[in-house]
Parts: sequence; C-alpha cells; structure tokens
Amino acid sequence: MISNSIVYIVLVASILALTFAFIFYKQMMKEDEGTDLMKKIAAYVRKGAMAYLKQQYKVVIIVFIVLAAIFGIMAYFKLQNGIVWFAFLTGGFFSGLAGFFGMKTATYASARTANAARKSLNSGLQVAFRSGAVMGLVVVGLALLDVSVWFLVLNGTGLLEAVGAENDLITITTTMLTFGMGASTQALFARVGGGIYTKAADVGADLVGKTEYNIPEDDPRNPATIADNVGDNVGDVAGMGADLYESYAGSILATMALGASAFATAAVEGLQFKAVLAPMLIAAVGVLLSIIGIFLVKTKENAGMKELLGALSRGTNAAAILIAVATFGIMYFLFGKETGELANMWWQTSLSVVVGLLAGVIIGKATEYYTSQSYKPTQKVAESSKTGPATVIISGLGLGMLSTAIPVVTVGVAIILAYLCANGFNIEFTAVNLSRGLYGIGIAAVGMLSTLGITLATDAYGPIADNAGGNAEMSGLEPEVRKRTDALDALGNTTAATGKGFAIGSAALTALALLASYVEEIKIALLRVGQTTMEVGGDVIETAKASLVDFMNYYNVNLMNPVVLVGIFIGAMMAFVFCGMTMNAVGRAAQKMVEEVRRQFSTIKGILEGKAEPDYERCVAISTKGAQHEMLVPSILAILVPILTGVILGVPGVLGLLIGGLATGFVLAVFMANSGGAWDNAKKYVEEGNFGGKGSDNHKATVVGDTVGDPFKDTSGPSLNILIKLMSMVSIVMAGLTVTCHLL
Amino acid sequence: MISNSIVYIVLVASILALTFAFIFYKQMMKEDEGTDLMKKIAAYVRKGAMAYLKQQYKVVIIVFIVLAAIFGIMAYFKLQNGIVWFAFLTGGFFSGLAGFFGMKTATYASARTANAARKSLNSGLQVAFRSGAVMGLVVVGLALLDVSVWFLVLNGTGLLEAVGAENDLITITTTMLTFGMGASTQALFARVGGGIYTKAADVGADLVGKTEYNIPEDDPRNPATIADNVGDNVGDVAGMGADLYESYAGSILATMALGASAFATAAVEGLQFKAVLAPMLIAAVGVLLSIIGIFLVKTKENAGMKELLGALSRGTNAAAILIAVATFGIMYFLFGKETGELANMWWQTSLSVVVGLLAGVIIGKATEYYTSQSYKPTQKVAESSKTGPATVIISGLGLGMLSTAIPVVTVGVAIILAYLCANGFNIEFTAVNLSRGLYGIGIAAVGMLSTLGITLATDAYGPIADNAGGNAEMSGLEPEVRKRTDALDALGNTTAATGKGFAIGSAALTALALLASYVEEIKIALLRVGQTTMEVGGDVIETAKASLVDFMNYYNVNLMNPVVLVGIFIGAMMAFVFCGMTMNAVGRAAQKMVEEVRRQFSTIKGILEGKAEPDYERCVAISTKGAQHEMLVPSILAILVPILTGVILGVPGVLGLLIGGLATGFVLAVFMANSGGAWDNAKKYVEEGNFGGKGSDNHKATVVGDTVGDPFKDTSGPSLNILIKLMSMVSIVMAGLTVTCHLL
Repeated sequence: MISNSIVYIVLVASILALTFAFIFYKQMMKEDEGTDLMKKIAAYVRKGAMAYLKQQYKVVIIVFIVLAAIFGIMAYFKLQNGIVWFAFLTGGFFSGLAGFFGMKTATYASARTANAARKSLNSGLQVAFRSGAVMGLVVVGLALLDVSVWFLVLNGTGLLEAVGAENDLITITTTMLTFGMGASTQALFARVGGGIYTKAADVGADLVGKTEYNIPEDDPRNPATIADNVGDNVGDVAGMGADLYESYAGSILATMALGASAFATAAVEGLQFKAVLAPMLIAAVGVLLSIIGIFLVKTKENAGMKELLGALSRGTNAAAILIAVATFGIMYFLFGKETGELANMWWQTSLSVVVGLLAGVIIGKATEYYTSQSYKPTQKVAESSKTGPATVIISGLGLGMLSTAIPVVTVGVAIILAYLCANGFNIEFTAVNLSRGLYGIGIAAVGMLSTLGITLATDAYGPIADNAGGNAEMSGLEPEVRKRTDALDALGNTTAATGKGFAIGSAALTALALLASYVEEIKIALLRVGQTTMEVGGDVIETAKASLVDFMNYYNVNLMNPVVLVGIFIGAMMAFVFCGMTMNAVGRAAQKMVEEVRRQFSTIKGILEGKAEPDYERCVAISTKGAQHEMLVPSILAILVPILTGVILGVPGVLGLLIGGLATGFVLAVFMANSGGAWDNAKKYVEEGNFGGKGSDNHKATVVGDTVGDPFKDTSGPSLNILIKLMSMVSIVMAGLTVTCHLL
Repeated sequence: MISNSIVYIVLVASILALTFAFIFYKQMMKEDEGTDLMKKIAAYVRKGAMAYLKQQYKVVIIVFIVLAAIFGIMAYFKLQNGIVWFAFLTGGFFSGLAGFFGMKTATYASARTANAARKSLNSGLQVAFRSGAVMGLVVVGLALLDVSVWFLVLNGTGLLEAVGAENDLITITTTMLTFGMGASTQALFARVGGGIYTKAADVGADLVGKTEYNIPEDDPRNPATIADNVGDNVGDVAGMGADLYESYAGSILATMALGASAFATAAVEGLQFKAVLAPMLIAAVGVLLSIIGIFLVKTKENAGMKELLGALSRGTNAAAILIAVATFGIMYFLFGKETGELANMWWQTSLSVVVGLLAGVIIGKATEYYTSQSYKPTQKVAESSKTGPATVIISGLGLGMLSTAIPVVTVGVAIILAYLCANGFNIEFTAVNLSRGLYGIGIAAVGMLSTLGITLATDAYGPIADNAGGNAEMSGLEPEVRKRTDALDALGNTTAATGKGFAIGSAALTALALLASYVEEIKIALLRVGQTTMEVGGDVIETAKASLVDFMNYYNVNLMNPVVLVGIFIGAMMAFVFCGMTMNAVGRAAQKMVEEVRRQFSTIKGILEGKAEPDYERCVAISTKGAQHEMLVPSILAILVPILTGVILGVPGVLGLLIGGLATGFVLAVFMANSGGAWDNAKKYVEEGNFGGKGSDNHKATVVGDTVGDPFKDTSGPSLNILIKLMSMVSIVMAGLTVTCHLL
C-alpha cells in the first residue's frame, strides 16, 4: 500500500541534494584563492554583489508584506483560505535563498577558478563546474524541501480544516500553488532587477571602454569593470537561480494539482494520491541521477576542449537517459497494478515524460544551431558586419524571428503527444480524456526539468568562468590563464544552450498546466461563495462535480466570445509592453553608466595609464540604484494586469489573457534569447579572427549587435518565462476575487 | 421597399470616384514637368518602376493561375462552388490595378510637384495632394465597382444555381469573400515585393552614400539613388495601394457576410438584405464625403506649414465628422421603421460605426505621439544617440514595444463597445447576441475605413513629395525647392500617422469578422458534403440551423482544447517567422546593393566628383531581382500554413491559428511600425540641428536606427496586416478541404 510515508523519499532526496551542495561548497572553499590582488578583486565583487542583493531584498520584502497582507484580508472575506499568505511567503523566501546561496558560492569560486586555471584547463573546469553544481543542487534541494514539507504538513495534519477549508487533495495542491506564486514573484524581481543591473554595467563598460577607448574587456582601468563582474553574479547567477527554482517548483506543483483534479472521481482507491505523488517522485529520482551525473564529469589532467565538452555532455546525457529509464520504473511502481482501462497507464504516462525530455533536447539543439558560431546562421550575422552595424542588427533580428519555428513546432507536437500518450491515445474531447491529457502535459514538463540538478550546474558554471576571466584580467595574470577561462566560458555557452531549451520549453508546458489549475481554483472559489450549482447548456449540474469542459461551456471560453478575444489581445500586448519596459530600463541605466564612465575617464588624471585607480564604487552604486528603481514598475504591472483583467473581463477574459500572454510571450522569449545569443557569438566569431578580427570596423559593428543583444538575452527574454507563469499564478490566487466581482 | 436597385447607388458612387480620379489625373498631367533634366530623371524612375511592376506581375500571375487551377479542381470535387476561382482572379486583378494606377500617377506627379514647389509651398501641396487623391479614389472606386457588380450579378442572376450552389445571401456573400482572398494575395506580394525592393535600395543608398562617403540623400552621384526613388513608388505607392484596396474591400465583404448570417433567421422580411446592404451604403456615402473633403484642402497661396497642416486636417476631419452624421441617416433609412426589439437597431448600429471611427482616431493620435519628433518618446531616442548606435536601437525597440499598449487597449475597448452597441447592450452570450455583436464589430471596421478616399490621399501624397525632393536634388534645383518638398514630406508624416492608425485598427477588426465568416463557411462546407445533422452537447441539431455557438461546442473550440492551444502557438510563431523572412530578405538584398554601390564608387573614375555617371540601371536590376526572388517564399508560406494546419489540426486548430496570428501579428505590427517611425524621425530630429546635427557622430548613430527601421516600418510591419487577413481568407476558401480531411 502506498501511503504518505513515500513522501519522505522526496524529503530524503532534497536533504541529499543539500548535503552534496554543502560538500561541494566546502571542497571549493578549500581551494587556494590565488594572489593578494586576486583576493582583493574577488572581495570587491563579492561585496558589491552582496550589497546589491541586500538592497533588492529590501524592496522585495516590502512587496511581499503588502501582498501577504492583501491575501490576509482576502482570507478574512472568505475569498481565499487562510494559509495562502503564509505559503506565498515561504515560496518567495526559498526562491530568494536559492539565488543567495548560488551567488555566494559563485563569488567565492571565481578567483579560485582563475587560480586553478593557472594549473590546467581541467582544474579550472573542476572548480567552476563543482561550484555550479552547488547552485544546481541548492535549487532542486530547496524546492523539493519546500514541496515535501508542505505536502506532509497539509496532508498529514488538520491545518486546512483549522482554517475552514476543505482537506482534500485538490485543495491541498491548489493551496500549494500559492507558494509557487511566491517563488515566481521573487524570481521576477531577481531576473528583472538582476538583469537590469548586469546589462547596465555591461553595456556601460563596453560602450565606453571597448568602443571609445579601445581597452580590453575587464580591464582594471575601466571604472565599470567591477560593476560588470558584480552584475554577472546578481543577474546570471542569483537571477537565474531564483528563475529556475520557480520553473522547477512550478512544474511539480502544477502537475500535482492536475493529478489531484484529473483523478478526483476515479473509482480506483488511491489513484488520485498516486497521481499527486508521481511528479514528486520523478523529481526526487532526478535529483539522485543528477548527483551521479555530476560525478561523471571528469577528464584526464591534460584534457583539451573537446574532451572537456565530452565530459560535460557525458554527465547531462547520462542523467537524462537514466531518468527516462527510471520513469518507467517509478510509474510501474505507482500504476503497474492497475487493471482494465488503466492497465496501460504506467507506460503511457511514462511516454509523456519521455516526450518532454525529447522536446527539451530538440529545443536545446535548435538553440545551439541558431546561436553558436560553429553554424551558418550566426556566421552570417557576423558576415553582415561587412556592411556595418545596421545590417548586423537586421540580420540578428531576422535570425531570432526565424529561430522561433523549431521550438514552437516542437512544443506544439510535444503538447499533443504528451496529451495523447497520457490519456491512452484518445483524441475524443471528453472531460476525462482532457484532464488526463493535461496531466500528461504537466508531467512532460516535470520530465524536462527532472535533471535540473546537473543541467543547471552546466548553466551556472558559465558566469563563474566568466568572472574568473575578469579576475584573471584585472589581477594581471599571464594571458594563458585568460585564454583558458575564455575556453571554459565558450564551453559553457554550448551546454547552456541545452539548459535554456529546457527552461523555455518547460515554461510553456507548465503555463498550460497552470491554466487547468486556474479553472480548478475557480471551482473552489465558486463553492466557497456558496454557488453549488451551475447551468451548462440548459442542464443544472453540481458545481462540485463540474468538469473542465463544463466550465468552458459555463463561462463561454470559446474563440467567438469577444471577451476571450480581447483577453488574448491584452495578453499578447503584455508580453511586448513588459519587454519594452525592461529594455528601456536597461537603456536608461546604461546611459547613466556611460556618462559616469566617460566622466571618470576625462576627469581622473592618469586613469588611462593605470596610474590612478578609478572610482569603482560609484559605478556599482549607479547600477544598484538603477536596478532597484527600474525593476518595480514592470514587476508590479505583471501582478496588477491579471487582477484588473479579472475584475473587468471576468473568467473568460483572464483565460484569454493567460493564453495570449503565453503564446506571444513564449515566441517573443525564444526570439529575444536567440537573437541575443547569436549577436554575442557573432562578435566572438569575429574576435576569433574572422572578417577582420578584433579592432576592425567589422568587429565594432558586431559589438553594437552584442550590446543590443545584452538586454535581449539576459533581461527581457528570460524575464518573459517568469512573467507568463506569474500571471497564471496571480490569477489562480485571485480567483476568489474574480468570481465574486467582475464587470462583464 | 428596399430592393436590389439600391445597389446601383454603390455602383454610381464607385463610378463617381473613378471619374474624379480621372479628372485629378488629367489636371496633374497638365502641369509643367520642369526642366529637361527633371523630365529625364522622372522618366528614369518611371521606367524602373514600371519595369519592376511588370516583373512582379509576371510572378504573381503564375501564382494566381496555380491557385485558380487548384480551386477549379476543388470545385470539381465539390469542395467549393464553381465561381470561387473566377472571383479570386477578379479580386487579384483589381487590387493590382489599384496599385498600378496609383503608381503611374505618382511617377508622373513627382517632377511636377518639384516644379510646382519652385513657385510656392502651396502649389507643391496642391499637385502632390491631388495626385495622392487619384490613388485614394482609384482604390475605393475599384473596390466598390468590384463589390457592387459582383453583388448585382450574383443576387440578380441565377449564376450560383447554375454552378450547383445555393442562391441565398449567405452563399452569395461568402462566395464574394473569395475575391477578398484574391485581393489579399495580390496585396501581400505587392507589399512584400515592393517592401523588399524599396528597402534594399534605401538601405544600400544610405549605408554607402550617406555613412561611408558623406554625400547627401538623393545625390545623383550615388548609384543607388534612382533605385531608391523607384523603390518609393513600387513599395510605398503601389504596395500601399494594393494593401489598402485589400483592407477596404475586406472589411466591406466580411461585414456583408456577417450581416447575411446574423439576420438569416430574422422574422422581419428583408432585414437580412438590408444588413448586407448597410456596409456597402456606408462605403458609398463615404466616397462622396471623401471627394468633398478633398476639395476642402485649400489654402492661400503664401500659406505656411501650419496653415497647410490645418488644410489637410480640415479635409480629413470634415469627412470623418460627416460620415459619422451620415451613418445615422443611412441606418435610419434602412432600419428606422423596425419595431419591437429592433426599434433601436438603427441608432445602436450607428454607434458601432462611431466607435470604429473614434478608435481609428485614437490609434492615429497614439501613433503620432510615439513617432513624431515633436514629442518626448522620439526625442529620447534621438538623445540616446549620445551613447552610440546600440542605445539608439535599444531605446527604439523599447519605445515600439511600449507603444503597443494604447492601440491594443483601444481596439479591445472598441471590440467590446461595437459588439455591445450592435446587439442592444446585451452581454449575455447567446447565438443571436453574438452574431449581431460580431456584425457590429465588422461595421465598426467599415466605419473606420469609410473615408479612405481622403485618408489614403494624405497617406499617398507623402511618397510623391519624397520623390519630388529626390528629383529636385538630382536635377540640381535651388535648395529652397528641396526645403519645401522636405516640408511637404514632413507634413505627410503627420497625416500619414492617422492613416496608419486606421489601417492597423481596421485590420484587427476585419480579421475578427472573418473568423465568424470562417465558421459560416464551415457550415456551408458541411452541408455540401452531406452532413445535415450534428451532435452538440448530447442533442442532435440540424447543421443548417446551427449557430456560431453550436459550432464552438461541436468542434470544442475552447481554451482547454490542446489542439486550439497548439493552433494559437503556431499562429503566434507565424507572425514572427514571416517577419524574420522578410527582414532577412531585405538584409540580403541590401547587402548586394551595398557591395554594388561600393564597387561603383571604387571602380568608376570621377564618379565622386560628378564627372562620370554611375550605372543606375545595375542597382535597379539588383533591387528588382532581389525583390522578385525573395518575395516568393514568405508569401507562399502565408498560404500554405493555414492549409496545412487545417489538414493536420482540423477546424479548432485553424481557429487557434487565426486568433494566434491575429493577436501576435497585430501587436508585432504596431511595434514594428512605431519603432521604425520613431527611428526615422529621431534621425530627422538630429538633422534639424539637435544633439550635434547633421554629420555628427550622434547623427550617424541615428542613421543606423533609421536603417534598421526601414524594413520594420515599410516591409515587415505593414505586410503583417495583410498576412493576418490572408490567412483567414485562405482558411475560408479551404474550408471544404478541412472539413472532409483532417488528421486530428
């Protein structure tokens, strides 16, 4: 008999992940940090990064307090249950914690990586990769900790009954979704704030230092250098950590909620409970396999680039293949004994997971093809530099737009396959087929992210290597070291492409799953306000027994309803307006940085000869202030628009908004990420000696492309993934308000 | 009694429009074309433009023959009625003709405008504006001719019966929609081909001439100058003509079809017929008011810029206000005698028209605010040039993304208001309320475009003034003339903003109306293949009597159906991929042009001193070949994707595709148009002496922005409006195939 105690497996997995993260952290800390100058620079960066994070948390805490207070008031008016506000806070807290630990590790690891790279490429890789693994394991460990503990508390104690709510699995899982909202809110602030910080510094440093004064990247004479390196940490490390915590937890929570609702009326005892367990168990096993994968990343001491890449791929591929196999085992354990029409459920649901994994791999490969300088598309962007910056921009934008085709078609095919696999290949549109199919889509997303422990490690080690390069440059280490850290960085770009594929693909699938959770929450809200029956197509049915299809008919959520259409329009617009705001924010903050750097170059005597030290701290302060100031409006907009849409357009408008935001946001996110990536690598391709090489006019043209690409790929683009999920989460949490009060 | 003979009013209006167009054309031809050099240059441009148009038509004719043959085969297999192929051809023919006449006029008018500008600003305006009016009146005249003659033929003769189809108003109006598909196909080729031509030439001329060799715009030493001026004609004149012909005819046809279906079961006799008449009558009266408006555009001989702007605004405003008033008259004439629940129909439907007009004005004003250098947003883009081209691009992209908010919200509010006004302010979602409300949305689009005769005149005169400036520069007229033509051009930019608002807004509304027509066509297709009953929610109903709501339920076109969702994803992607293709096409063609211009500058001796004549024709040939070659793939994709989606995903997938394409395409179109417009005017703002003025580094940075903006605002952006409608039209025409054969 499968009971609550199985959840302890998940708890154990989470503790194991955190333990290994702690071990890797300790190992890294034992490494030598190098020369005094290296230590000094690392301390500078660490101090700046921590100072920023503190500032950011100060703002975020206020937002969280306000939102939690609103949720408290809503609970008082029975528009929500009384646990939401607290679950929301824990989600935000853990998401922030994941970013904090990751960044702390990264800032300690950069000088150590640079120092290790003095010995060999492989040593550098080991330090950087193990530090990245700390981040990966902290994210999955904290997420599973949060999920398993909450589930044990809510399912094992009478807490929900104590606050006057139902105590069934549907209420438990939808309540847990609110800690997803906390994670998403924290992640959005971290991505937007961190993204603005890092790109303002990066753009500022590049435009004046590289373009106007022709000094190299990370040159200590450049006043914005420290801010730039701080930015890599707060944006690419802390921001990414909070982001992926949100994706990972979100996919598990959404699928748990789908499992609870899809099998709520199942005749077989315990089936609903097992469906809720499945995503947690896949994630737990994925953590163990990720740890195994991490240990597989090893090479000979004198390994070259190709062997290093092979080592990294070995780790991620092994974890992915093992989880595919293990999934069949987990599903057999859970559903292998079912009979009748459910006899095939175990392998059918497993196939959905495999679909998700494959889709992630395909999107990753497509990302690599479009953004790596080893392939034609990016090389063509580099070639267009022969006719100046304008054609670099045009061809980069064109590439990004074209590159949306494969990911979108892949996700489309994956949605339909995961749906059909999970409901026994039944295309007929019935309530049962639909909810089982949606569960399949959710579990495909869980599958895609199940090995996040190691894929995130390969993603997070990139910025560490990048920072190590900065440290090497600033502390004047021999050029060989910089070459090695650059090689590590380039290696990271290739593996990071796969990571991005998984993040983007899973966001689309998770957001779809959240749509169904939204409808489920509407049902709970209707029951809470006492609407126990509803009229659908002339028949009166019990609200408690209404299916997803009934709700679609009751609210007329079809494509002829103008309210739905207007919602879709607003959703599409939101994606663009949000990006516009973050792009402008980077532009404004960067402009201030450029002016400050120019001022220092022209007023501080001897700065260009390296005789006088630039005022690094002023640049750090500008980025900090800019990011803090600019992150508020777009983030609050993301929270307000779904609420306003609900209050004005009601349920059909909200569903339109979420779909419009999802479809446009997904495509826009792929476009921006790939354009940005291609520009970055087109510049590197020229720097490698093609089309005139470093310092040529062509190179300058590609630097313009890279600068435009900075906010594309590191601020606006990745924030979109969070935006589309946060809008869903807000709608779910605010369902009570929408149901009781709406204009149309 | 209102009978078929009323349609002759529409025919008379169309003939009147064509007559006035002919008179204005003759008047313009009587003007003096200026010096021999001016004549020679004008002849050059005319020859190049006509040569290109011939080439384009050659390609387009093949596409039309293939498509017509496919429709013929489909008719043979009873998947379509036997008139479709011919109606399709006439739509394409007239759309092409509108572009051809407009361009012919423009190429004769440019030198004459330049010559008149030697006298005074006002004389220049008169020649250019009246020539623009030729275009405006030809477009509306030909469209109404096509609509009224087809209607008289189909409704008056037994033609439909002769080909074995029904002979009711629904069949008549949906058959007529297929000539809309012809117009859209032609328009897409004209916009894409013309857009690639003009921007390849423009980018090529600017990048080498202005940026590398520092010679002014339109300098005769620049080998790409003639191609650039030819491009203005084939892209901005012929392309825009075909485009707006398609918008105008599309909105009328879609609303006629909606009227036929909304009132098909009305108990009042003749109501359906009158509902079909209404859009035609509004358009006919709009033509007369446009002609009056055109005559109101007059000033004193020594008028300044402000008075000229006042004169233009007087014309368009008068026409708009008069049509609002006249609409109430038309509606009272048609529906004033109704009783009971329809007693208020006349003024309620009129209100929908007013909503459309107001929405157009608001979008126009927003466009002006975001793209005119008189306002902050564009000035800020200009200011960002202080930190180089990268920040110009970032801020321009940010501006464009933000600028989508007002148009989208306006269209959203307009959709709901037009819908509610037309169905008697009844939010309840019933079949009757829905179809009447949709009719209101359609008629709002008709209202928005009703004064196209004059708004297009203010739009089309811009490129004529632009070309006149080119002629003045190349023929070495006194600088005063160039200043005057520049002023006329700038004036045109302001009035054109309003025109663009109407075009974009109406495209969104028309596309919505076409969705309903698609469902109507599905019904006809089902009946044609013999499916006379369908099961909806457990009940069996007659297909012939099924409402839009029944079809939504029958096909499960709701937001939980994964097939619908995948359709929406694909639609959103199509908008991006289509833009990516056209952007890349411009990039490739421009690169060839740049290389050719550089080659000529470096190999033709004395070219820079003005001693040797550049080889203009080679540049013309490069643009022609590039446009011809590159326009094919994106255009065919726009036709193929809806067909493939239908065959694979079926009806719910197609509806998803159309909505996804519409929502994302609409927002993307606004973004691209406004970013492009802002970059263009930011450059002009710097050229006016701000932030360093002409020749400064800041100026160069804004030229990069302008160059990137070229394909944004003149190729990809405007093509999107056509794309979203063409995809709907294709789906409508292919409904028979989708119904009989689909995978899911």
